[in-house]
Amino acid sequence: MTTPQGKVYLVGAGPGDLDYLTVRGRQLLSHAEVLVYDALADDRLLQWVKPQCQQVDVGKRGGKPSPPQSEINDILVRYCQQGQQVVRLKSGDPFIFGRCTSEIQALVEADCPFEVVPGISSALAAPLLAGIPLTDPVLSRGFAVVSGHDPLALDWEALVRMETVVVLMGGAQLLEIVRLLQRYGKSSQTPVAVIRWAGRPQQQVWTGTLENIVRRTANESLSPTVIVIGEVVGLREFLQCANVNS
Amino acid sequence: MTTPQGKVYLVGAGPGDLDYLTVRGRQLLSHAEVLVYDALADDRLLQWVKPQCQQVDVGKRGGKPSPPQSEINDILVRYCQQGQQVVRLKSGDPFIFGRCTSEIQALVEADCPFEVVPGISSALAAPLLAGIPLTDPVLSRGFAVVSGHDPLALDWEALVRMETVVVLMGGAQLLEIVRLLQRYGKSSQTPVAVIRWAGRPQQQVWTGTLENIVRRTANESLSPTVIVIGEVVGLREFLQCANVNS
Repeated sequence: MTTPQGKVYLVGAGPGDLDYLTVRGRQLLSHAEVLVYDALADDRLLQWVKPQCQQVDVGKRGGKPSPPQSEINDILVRYCQQGQQVVRLKSGDPFIFGRCTSEIQALVEADCPFEVVPGISSALAAPLLAGIPLTDPVLSRGFAVVSGHDPLALDWEALVRMETVVVLMGGAQLLEIVRLLQRYGKSSQTPVAVIRWAGRPQQQVWTGTLENIVRRTANESLSPTVIVIGEVVGLREFLQCANVNS
Repeated sequence: MTTPQGKVYLVGAGPGDLDYLTVRGRQLLSHAEVLVYDALADDRLLQWVKPQCQQVDVGKRGGKPSPPQSEINDILVRYCQQGQQVVRLKSGDPFIFGRCTSEIQALVEADCPFEVVPGISSALAAPLLAGIPLTDPVLSRGFAVVSGHDPLALDWEALVRMETVVVLMGGAQLLEIVRLLQRYGKSSQTPVAVIRWAGRPQQQVWTGTLENIVRRTANESLSPTVIVIGEVVGLREFLQCANVNS
């Protein structure tokens, strides 16, 4: 008897609510023999896996650090070589700050078949779910998406010239980001939105300007957070989106 | 007997393949009483609507122009006021170049309940399906997304400083876009990918540099197309993604 061929699916779980997983993602979850996840977007995702599916949690839990990346790579390769259908669940989209390169490299080197399945990135979904379109024929002919975890590494001279900027993972650096935007010439009256837990029941949205957003979010826990900077934030009130939770 | 309350759902259909529709989008399609669409991403989507669902095609078909936006707005409002569950299908994500503002305004003015349901934008999915991650810890700490239909309206001085630029609807303007990028200082050796029909069986990908991409795509029909500019294009070969079709 030959071992069936294993395969690893790097699947984007979307922004949080399992309604926003793709049809393909759901299908793969329901056929998975092994599920490898780190930060489960929604515990309800587990209702879609088979009872006999092996669940491997490689995330930080209860103060315990997550295993090193090399160990996660080994887990994926090992189960694949055992002939298993492995789903590696990533929050959002696997190719937007998903740190997939190391895992894919390991799979390529071990000759393991794999497929990357797109998911809805919170970079786009969080603004939408807060009622903010990132593009607009007049206000925003484009937008930039950056990671906020190291603001000094970014080219703010370029970013301030973009009509709309989306900052992921920038909650802890909000003060620094606001300071840099103004230092490089963005008006203090530029509208800003801070969106926490987008797409979850506990979603919260704060709006203001570069001048007052830090004050308005003082003493709030701002993780996980998507920050939107630009005139499009003002469309929120105007469009009165029915699916805005706050 | 009172009329049941109608509602309009502006649903993102994703990049093309119906596998990449969201679970919620599929659910809404299967309950829709009226489906309003312009460019059906995938005819197979129709398999999910009820036989008695009324299908209203408001797109260009066989040389016939699409109805004016005001007429589309009226259609949505009218069916909603008749108490229908209306799905307004948009390709990609409704809030990324989806021109929803006018439709939402009309719904708000007529006091029609509505909800915007995110979809996977081809801005992110086309690069992924071509094996190109838009972010990378070393090569790309962020990216910009712009519409290419009027390149002269964009701030190229800012865009050339972004590590990665994604241009939607830019196929017909590829020559002009390449010219502007180089004029504002982008190296002629910058990698470029042109992705056509992302996520469809007929997906095609051309790669090259700012110097040779126009020559490499000469005589090709470049619509619908997503253009990616930046060093991340080079990761494509390196990652050897299994779901790349070309």
